[in-house]
Amino acid sequence: MLENINSPEDLKRLDDEQLNQLAIEIRQFLVDTVSKTGGHFGANLGVVELTLALHKVFNSPKDKLVWDVGHQAYVHKILTGRKEGFAKLRKLGGMAGFPKREESEHDAFGVGHASTSISAALGMAIARDLDGAAYHVVSIIGDGALTGGMAMEALNHAGHLGTNLLVILNDNEMSIAENVGAVSKYLTRLRSDPTYSKAKAEIEQSLLRLPAIGAKLTKTLEKIKDSMRYLMVPGHWFEEFGFKYLGPIDGHHIGELVHTLEDAKKMNGPVLIHVITEKGKGYASAENAPDKWHAWPSSAKASGAPSYTSVFSQTLIELAKQDEQIVAVTAAMPSGTGLDKFSAVFPKRCFDVGIAEQHAATFCAGLATSGKKPVFAVYSTFLQRAYDQVIHDIAIQNLHVVFAIDRAGLVGPDGETHQGAFDLSYLRAIPHLTVMMPKDENELRHMLYTALQLNGPVAVRFPRADGLGVPFDPQFQLIPVGASEILREGRELVIYALGPMVAVAMQAADRLYAQHGISAKVVNMRFVKPLDAEEVVKNARLGIPALTVEEAALAGGMGSAILEVLADEHLEVPLTRVGLPDRFIEHGSREELLKQVGLDVDTLVDHALLLVKDAKRSRHLARG
Amino acid sequence: MLENINSPEDLKRLDDEQLNQLAIEIRQFLVDTVSKTGGHFGANLGVVELTLALHKVFNSPKDKLVWDVGHQAYVHKILTGRKEGFAKLRKLGGMAGFPKREESEHDAFGVGHASTSISAALGMAIARDLDGAAYHVVSIIGDGALTGGMAMEALNHAGHLGTNLLVILNDNEMSIAENVGAVSKYLTRLRSDPTYSKAKAEIEQSLLRLPAIGAKLTKTLEKIKDSMRYLMVPGHWFEEFGFKYLGPIDGHHIGELVHTLEDAKKMNGPVLIHVITEKGKGYASAENAPDKWHAWPSSAKASGAPSYTSVFSQTLIELAKQDEQIVAVTAAMPSGTGLDKFSAVFPKRCFDVGIAEQHAATFCAGLATSGKKPVFAVYSTFLQRAYDQVIHDIAIQNLHVVFAIDRAGLVGPDGETHQGAFDLSYLRAIPHLTVMMPKDENELRHMLYTALQLNGPVAVRFPRADGLGVPFDPQFQLIPVGASEILREGRELVIYALGPMVAVAMQAADRLYAQHGISAKVVNMRFVKPLDAEEVVKNARLGIPALTVEEAALAGGMGSAILEVLADEHLEVPLTRVGLPDRFIEHGSREELLKQVGLDVDTLVDHALLLVKDAKRSRHLARG
Repeated sequence: MLENINSPEDLKRLDDEQLNQLAIEIRQFLVDTVSKTGGHFGANLGVVELTLALHKVFNSPKDKLVWDVGHQAYVHKILTGRKEGFAKLRKLGGMAGFPKREESEHDAFGVGHASTSISAALGMAIARDLDGAAYHVVSIIGDGALTGGMAMEALNHAGHLGTNLLVILNDNEMSIAENVGAVSKYLTRLRSDPTYSKAKAEIEQSLLRLPAIGAKLTKTLEKIKDSMRYLMVPGHWFEEFGFKYLGPIDGHHIGELVHTLEDAKKMNGPVLIHVITEKGKGYASAENAPDKWHAWPSSAKASGAPSYTSVFSQTLIELAKQDEQIVAVTAAMPSGTGLDKFSAVFPKRCFDVGIAEQHAATFCAGLATSGKKPVFAVYSTFLQRAYDQVIHDIAIQNLHVVFAIDRAGLVGPDGETHQGAFDLSYLRAIPHLTVMMPKDENELRHMLYTALQLNGPVAVRFPRADGLGVPFDPQFQLIPVGASEILREGRELVIYALGPMVAVAMQAADRLYAQHGISAKVVNMRFVKPLDAEEVVKNARLGIPALTVEEAALAGGMGSAILEVLADEHLEVPLTRVGLPDRFIEHGSREELLKQVGLDVDTLVDHALLLVKDAKRSRHLARG
Repeated sequence: MLENINSPEDLKRLDDEQLNQLAIEIRQFLVDTVSKTGGHFGANLGVVELTLALHKVFNSPKDKLVWDVGHQAYVHKILTGRKEGFAKLRKLGGMAGFPKREESEHDAFGVGHASTSISAALGMAIARDLDGAAYHVVSIIGDGALTGGMAMEALNHAGHLGTNLLVILNDNEMSIAENVGAVSKYLTRLRSDPTYSKAKAEIEQSLLRLPAIGAKLTKTLEKIKDSMRYLMVPGHWFEEFGFKYLGPIDGHHIGELVHTLEDAKKMNGPVLIHVITEKGKGYASAENAPDKWHAWPSSAKASGAPSYTSVFSQTLIELAKQDEQIVAVTAAMPSGTGLDKFSAVFPKRCFDVGIAEQHAATFCAGLATSGKKPVFAVYSTFLQRAYDQVIHDIAIQNLHVVFAIDRAGLVGPDGETHQGAFDLSYLRAIPHLTVMMPKDENELRHMLYTALQLNGPVAVRFPRADGLGVPFDPQFQLIPVGASEILREGRELVIYALGPMVAVAMQAADRLYAQHGISAKVVNMRFVKPLDAEEVVKNARLGIPALTVEEAALAGGMGSAILEVLADEHLEVPLTRVGLPDRFIEHGSREELLKQVGLDVDTLVDHALLLVKDAKRSRHLARG
């Protein structure tokens, strides 16, 4: 049946039984394709019926479906003419793993980060109202994403405006990790306690059934009834936000879903439908271990070396054994950041705050004022969510908070929403901050140790990659702040490299010498802030042309910091910057993308040859 | 009595009557001092009794008082030995207008932006628990700040952790502007409906009083009682977050405040006390117009020219009359951004989303997907709160959202939390974005017009200052994207200036010519992104040394962008960058601070003379 479904129109004539059959075929399709390509898995199996019901009841693209986070939109992609795309899901040049406006008119809003959908949907709904148009706008948000601050800001504003807006709360009792927070407990109660969720109806029924029993008693009961007017509402937390609450309903029962969505369509004002789904539904392994089956890993070949993430995690455990002031904080990414292992060893010193990066950063600030040494383990792209808190709550007060910034640089298949491109630019402008990046996993250990010895805010960024397989030094070493490391001497060129680009620079230097007889100095910069100005000035005074290499946006990155040093000293040398260009970089493997943007040995050698040639010509001209 | 109060200890022996007398004296002191220095006013008059009660019941600095926003901490400053500081409140070198850790051990957490206090307080409370220490942590947050996303994130996490933490909700029914949102309506109901807030106690009493009336009825009533177990809780919205709710109580009744705080001290777990206060209490003019009396303006001399804010506001109204797709959005700053005037003309096209910058940005994104032209009017420092949304929801999708960034550059008396120092650095790295700043209020009009004609995200930044008093052009002009404007020709030096620094650069050029015979070219850059690379390259090819001048952080700012262009072309010329240094800049008047950081004519002339002298020497050496 699936092969005849090419657009949502094809669903309209199917009955519940046919839709159930289609659900089975879609699950099989997902298992077949995602097991080959890798990609998000459990969340998509959980929303098969919900997505079918949405496309049955609503008319996309006229009606707008806004998926929160978006990793659960595979079924939506299948139903909107993109089955073939799954062959190259998340591959270079292939279909994205998230909704994208340019990919389909059915993708009303692009996404990748959590908690944005209600805000976006409300904007669409208001635009509709202003235009006097008539269509439906639906946000589909998970229980984890709901507790992100901006989702609550949006609920509050939507309730205030009172326009027609449908929010589907896709409650699978688990986002990526176990859910955090009081609101989560509230949802659990709504789900599990029929007394609670049906209280209003029951009590009203009971009161109606009471016999007339004298004026005094009647008066008392009237008083009770009045009092209950505001209170006897299932889902009242949502009702206080100004939403009508429907549910909870079974998210795998197509008939119930269609019926409820049809009801909701007829209602005025903001409506929230609480849908209970099961992550991994229909695939036994995934049902039993939903966090493990959140995503199906791409079959990348293992390097044998440990990942930076795992080295971070192990090192933090070692350091925390020696220093009981160290505590760790994650915003709903215990497994992705490796803090799950830390938490197993130090359950009382590890805090998962939920999808709440703003709160996470300022929570760290509070801990730091009271003598703790908080380490906030966070992806580069998610730290963008806490930018003001880094400045306002941490840096201004020069508090000792360590940011362990994972996924710094290109992340691969998750694409442009997840590339860690901007952190050097946005962090470098902040006073008091120290920013560093290790050349290998051994140096990561020393940097983490150093970061915890310093004062003030310190960021250590590292890539989504395996290390180089280097041995660990037996002892932790304190790296002098702002000191670079010369890895190779040379006189014709200096390469200033950062992080994983140091190894690439070393290979380029090897080749420059072996194939072209050019001797290039290679400097592992280690610190982007404070920068090793002394080393930069020394080389420039010798007139050596420079190549800067970083896995970060070129605008305002390390190369710019080096240019600033040179300008401040009024030193002028030819300098070529290599890094991430001024565009958003799509999905693909990290290696493919690095090559695409020119962060590879070949490109570095080409730049180096040009630089050295130009420098020779200039010297020649000067002499001539 | 006030003159004998030098620390919170001095309050402990006062009785309620004496505290009430002290409250009167403090109000008089506030009126006397703030009317002279300028500063926040209404909020401080509103919390006199609350602050007295807090310092009576708690033992600061052992117990931690964490003020949200912090503009209401004047009474706290008075009671903690800083009365004398009010003579130079918010003046250069004088006392800050906000709590600052370095100013007093009683300032547990520095602040300036809203919604941070619960996160910080929770961090302190957890640090206390880990240390096995025993002290109290109190967050004092307004009803406006409560609806900021991070405050809700923190409530959710605090409820989850269940540690001892006291949140005082200082509900004055109005933050700076009228409060926004469903939660605000909820608070209004809590305040105004005794049936509602006292329902639990009343109903339980009523049920107890019911006579035994037969098995069936008893059973029914038992069922009601059971059902009510979860529901009959005043303040249940907070209870669902895991907080015990006390209140609402009268925030001007010292006895009631002290009594309730003493009760709360003995409770376990997170507790929220809902305190009703009146902004401007005790000062009739301020009581009647609380938004007007939010702050007492410093007696700055008026320039006669309109402020950039007012020109923005008027221009947007003009443009919106011509284009009905234009809508305006503010995050709780309708008056500060001038959108109050827009709202008066176009009430249906103006949206105040509350203290919710993240939501505001993505709400704009949603509007833009549906054909609207949203203008988000926001202070530079508050846009930091929406950084991820600018990238993830707007720039990646290249949506046409206009950011009208007010308070870009130095803001003056509000100090380091409010300086608009970083926007050029953090915005310049974002692909698709256009970033501009006008040299005067007339150019602001053209830039706003241009921004609304373009596609994709556009930021127009402007200072917290009066314009130059220039006349307005009769017609709006489209400024070619990325085109600078040459204001003065010259051959010995080129000054690349941005925004209000253009006028300073022109004065410097005049003086250079008149006093030193040096001809300096002055370029009004207008665009920081895309930069006018052609103009920069042309001047560099002529070997003209360059001075860059911007009211923004030097790290990654416009000067760096110019260095990047030069490096990419392998052009080397002496270049001096002038802008905000790598430190947080404290309060003072904007003029004083500009001078302090060297953004004045004298300093520019000094830099220029050095540059020209060095360039001459280099040429001489080259010739020699």
